[in-house]
Amino acid sequence: MKEELIEILELIKNKKFTEVRGKIINFNSVHIAELIENLELAEAILVFRMLPKDLAVDVFNYLNNDFQEKIISSINDKEIKYMIEQLYFDDMIDLLEEMPANIVKKILKHSNVEQRKLINQFLNYPEYSAGSLMTIEYVDLKKNMTIKEALEHIKEYGVNKQTIYTCYVIDEKRKLEGIVSLRKLILSDYNLKVEEIMKKDIAYVNTYQDQEEVAAVFKKYDLIAVPVVDKERRLTGIITVDDIVDVIDQENTEDFQKMAAMAPSEEKYLDTGVWTLAKNRLMWLVILMISATFTGNIIKRFEDVLQSVVILTAFIPMLMDTGGNAGSQSATLVIRSIALGEIKGKDVFKVIWKELRVSVIVGFSLAFLNYLRIRLVEKVPYNVSLAVCITLFFTVVLAKIVGAILPMIAKKLKLDPAIMASPLITTVVDATSLIIYFSVARVLLNI
Amino acid sequence: MKEELIEILELIKNKKFTEVRGKIINFNSVHIAELIENLELAEAILVFRMLPKDLAVDVFNYLNNDFQEKIISSINDKEIKYMIEQLYFDDMIDLLEEMPANIVKKILKHSNVEQRKLINQFLNYPEYSAGSLMTIEYVDLKKNMTIKEALEHIKEYGVNKQTIYTCYVIDEKRKLEGIVSLRKLILSDYNLKVEEIMKKDIAYVNTYQDQEEVAAVFKKYDLIAVPVVDKERRLTGIITVDDIVDVIDQENTEDFQKMAAMAPSEEKYLDTGVWTLAKNRLMWLVILMISATFTGNIIKRFEDVLQSVVILTAFIPMLMDTGGNAGSQSATLVIRSIALGEIKGKDVFKVIWKELRVSVIVGFSLAFLNYLRIRLVEKVPYNVSLAVCITLFFTVVLAKIVGAILPMIAKKLKLDPAIMASPLITTVVDATSLIIYFSVARVLLNI
Repeated sequence: MKEELIEILELIKNKKFTEVRGKIINFNSVHIAELIENLELAEAILVFRMLPKDLAVDVFNYLNNDFQEKIISSINDKEIKYMIEQLYFDDMIDLLEEMPANIVKKILKHSNVEQRKLINQFLNYPEYSAGSLMTIEYVDLKKNMTIKEALEHIKEYGVNKQTIYTCYVIDEKRKLEGIVSLRKLILSDYNLKVEEIMKKDIAYVNTYQDQEEVAAVFKKYDLIAVPVVDKERRLTGIITVDDIVDVIDQENTEDFQKMAAMAPSEEKYLDTGVWTLAKNRLMWLVILMISATFTGNIIKRFEDVLQSVVILTAFIPMLMDTGGNAGSQSATLVIRSIALGEIKGKDVFKVIWKELRVSVIVGFSLAFLNYLRIRLVEKVPYNVSLAVCITLFFTVVLAKIVGAILPMIAKKLKLDPAIMASPLITTVVDATSLIIYFSVARVLLNI
Repeated sequence: MKEELIEILELIKNKKFTEVRGKIINFNSVHIAELIENLELAEAILVFRMLPKDLAVDVFNYLNNDFQEKIISSINDKEIKYMIEQLYFDDMIDLLEEMPANIVKKILKHSNVEQRKLINQFLNYPEYSAGSLMTIEYVDLKKNMTIKEALEHIKEYGVNKQTIYTCYVIDEKRKLEGIVSLRKLILSDYNLKVEEIMKKDIAYVNTYQDQEEVAAVFKKYDLIAVPVVDKERRLTGIITVDDIVDVIDQENTEDFQKMAAMAPSEEKYLDTGVWTLAKNRLMWLVILMISATFTGNIIKRFEDVLQSVVILTAFIPMLMDTGGNAGSQSATLVIRSIALGEIKGKDVFKVIWKELRVSVIVGFSLAFLNYLRIRLVEKVPYNVSLAVCITLFFTVVLAKIVGAILPMIAKKLKLDPAIMASPLITTVVDATSLIIYFSVARVLLNI
């Protein structure tokens, strides 16, 4: 925490509240929220209540869910009513989704019929859709306004809008006709019409589009806000870039979790219960454990080979690990490239051809190095060394090709490529590499 | 591509260039860039040259490096000079960093002494630092200006600024005193002074701060631009949110690559050469391959156990895989939580305690399921089954604890926690789980 905040913390502890009030209003909302989260509940509410109303709403948004809940439970009806009126619509929806039922009830009691209808509509958008992210506080303009009129309109109606930096030009049926940035408005001749300076070839998203696609649109066009339209291209809301930054993190976390064979979860690690964590991890571990028994069965089938040359067993971990690692490298690169839109379905042969060449280089290098090492350092007989290294080469090639293809197949089947990552590939590659190993050993060692 | 673009493509193929010109200027720069990238070089340059100058510069920014290089090689000196004057400073620096030496020379020839000095300064900021991301095109205000004066100032000087939505208030020594948003300016009484409405408790970053930290500041404060200051808190530049979105993707890609045991690379997969890909992957594979021989040595040391009960070998893959997967789950969660700032160094005991409980639940469930399966389905003798399942339980517990602790130790040592992921943890856990396995088997099977 910043020094100045620690100073305020001291003042609060010493109950010098008038001084606190004088100082605190000069702080950033983020810092005030940080301060409040470090207080006991009674003090927290006291400090929250001494904030000017506008600032209070802003600070509220930066508090964690736990404190939001406590504050709503503690403030009076008039204060709640004010909060509801002032909160941006998307923040309110987020709040309603996070709060327990009794708090939701308390909040909804203070909304009017109109609002409640709208809230219901928003709560019904699918999770992770553009609709669930958007807000309704935007500035709309008409194309026959002059820029002077447009600026006056913004000055009059802009106060409660989430952004005024991009304004949306709509016709009488609310159909989106174009956008104009505040920048363009400010920098143009005030006598021009909005129509003359608005952009018509614009990026927009659909209410039911997935948030991952929305994020891709933001990245492609370098936007600070995107309009959301319904099937008739009527403007229904906007999404701002700060929410998209969160979406990008969320989507990445999901990929990380899936790639490590876990059910994805949005909750923060330290806030997640032990049972939930265990549940999220268990399903995939069971599936993979059972699949790994296939590998065990292969070993059983080739028991005779192992019994006649016991030292072969010692190389199984190295072969399995290297195969798994080589495969997971390719899988990770391909999964990530698909997620960033750099690889499309049609690139499958390009990818295979690339991985084939890479894997031959990598496989040969590893096999060669390993041969030298086990011959010279471990003094392993040359035919065993050869069996190990031939297997190593083919395992690496196989692992890299499988690692690259599986995510692309998943994509084709409309599954998430991220599940075709390290754990699954390890299991597939393990079994095949052991079959290669024992078959090669049989030939080379005359078993 | 959009239908309208395909139409234009047709017109170009048929050499109807006057029609092309009339239509193309209504398109979004992103779409024009897409169109140009789909053309032969000669046509591409023809189309690029028919764009109005302002649009041309904007389109240029959205072209890939390959096309940027080709276009600069083909346009004349006057056109290059115009481009240099119009490009935002951060885009120009990016360009200079990407282009080959002869192109850089061609560009620098057209810059004046002042510019060249500044360019050199910027090229010297460490890669991935705030300095390397920032731009110098921002609007600065003085605190004793009235809002009316400030708006006039913006109207006069704002055209070439990268953003006018946040303006920076500096004193005569360029020290940053506060910020004021265009929103606040537009919505306030025009007779007030800038000083009266500016925010003083603001977020800023230092020139030498890492881009990951800059991204964290954006997320914490929901910014669309952040000021960059030097050691004396003098304003040296600003960073805008569109660049930060790219940084977030970049940092995530880096983590994905490190976690899959690869040297990180920024290049797109399909654009990366086969030798580079091989090189990036080889080092870690060699390290892990050699580490895996420790596991092999353990097997050698316990050869007698394996020889007396051959079936024990068949469970090695399952034990190794499950240990690896369990460990990589924990490691991934912890690495990700550290990256998102949700877990700090001081949380290490909380994390261990959590993982201990989760791993006991998960380990017990897996061991129990596995015992049932191998006793009932595979008819494995009960003492062997017991040895396998006891090992399984301890392997899972160990893997999860190790998986959670190693990234936190890395963080403490100022290494990137992402390298302590699946591959490394698998290797560590493999060896230990085999020691447990053989030791337990010795006792239970009286070997």
